Amino acid sequence: MGETPPFLANPETTRESIMRATYLALCEHGYAGLTIQRIAESFGKSKSLLYHHYDDKDELLLAFLQFMLEEHESSVPETADDDPRERLDALVDAMLPPELSAEHRGFTAAMVELRAQAAHDERYSEQFAEHDRAFQDHLVDVIEDGIEAGTFRDVDAERVAEFVGTTVAGAMTRRVTGGDDRAATTARDALESYVEQVLLADDTGADT
Amino acid sequence: MGETPPFLANPETTRESIMRATYLALCEHGYAGLTIQRIAESFGKSKSLLYHHYDDKDELLLAFLQFMLEEHESSVPETADDDPRERLDALVDAMLPPELSAEHRGFTAAMVELRAQAAHDERYSEQFAEHDRAFQDHLVDVIEDGIEAGTFRDVDAERVAEFVGTTVAGAMTRRVTGGDDRAATTARDALESYVEQVLLADDTGADT
Repeated sequence: MGETPPFLANPETTRESIMRATYLALCEHGYAGLTIQRIAESFGKSKSLLYHHYDDKDELLLAFLQFMLEEHESSVPETADDDPRERLDALVDAMLPPELSAEHRGFTAAMVELRAQAAHDERYSEQFAEHDRAFQDHLVDVIEDGIEAGTFRDVDAERVAEFVGTTVAGAMTRRVTGGDDRAATTARDALESYVEQVLLADDTGADT
Repeated sequence: MGETPPFLANPETTRESIMRATYLALCEHGYAGLTIQRIAESFGKSKSLLYHHYDDKDELLLAFLQFMLEEHESSVPETADDDPRERLDALVDAMLPPELSAEHRGFTAAMVELRAQAAHDERYSEQFAEHDRAFQDHLVDVIEDGIEAGTFRDVDAERVAEFVGTTVAGAMTRRVTGGDDRAATTARDALESYVEQVLLADDTGADT
């Protein structure tokens, strides 16, 4: 993680090229500093092409969030055979990588800004409700597989997933708004303890 | 919780009146919809009075955040004698009340928007680092008192406090940006389980 997502690396269509340009402009300028002009610059095309497809910056950004969600959904590997605990760690790692490259830090900061738009703009709030739901569903799948395999205790998977998702959201936010990386590291460590003490079944090494 | 904070209810100085007007305008319009004009309207005074004290909207909002922090710090009661678990619950309750009045929802949404400014504005990031630190210090105090009293296990108080603070931040954010209140309720329930299973000493009813 931390580099340009693979599905943005080699755009093949105009839409993909616009999405890649939006991603790069967001990483560099954030939401507050973003303009259609700057997206056009990172795209190497004219503003008028962008205005041909999207009415304004927010319409383009909402399309971008939808694109990211679809691409992300289609790129999650089917790994039901793998160890549920490793899959859970991988999901948390993907959202909270231990180190952030400058590009990924810029992107995380931009996502925190975009999410804040949801506080007053229903279009953003619908989009982030979908994002939260998708992340939640992945977590529930992994936890339910773990319960079935006997790796995890018979917990309420929805509730545990909601808790993990909420903590991850808090750590992403604090990491880019509170001035240091401690939030992410501590959240990862604490989720690790939580998994060991609350989630892992008694006979699978909870005390090791 | 959920109503206008007491220290804003009866302003006695011009500064306090401006802070109260800022609070009310933030609850109603959020950060994105806030203007010096709207603050002046909720204040019943002219814009020029506000511009006499503050250069722009952000300078006023940064002064407001500092004011809220100072007032909040001076209003936290000294209750070292009370039950540590009740004090911990009270701290979480204050940040995540089960129900949000319209005013408090508006204010929480505005705080999420203000925090997002920290993603690109160092003045906001310094201010929220101070807020996070103050909340963290209160949590650490309570946890250390609880360890000393034998109510809590001998945990790393800084780490546990950081985890609780991160989860609370995530729940506040998701509650006003993801479209429903589930995040706050689940986070409160899960923190409850966490306290019971991870924090409470073995002989104080962890399994009740």
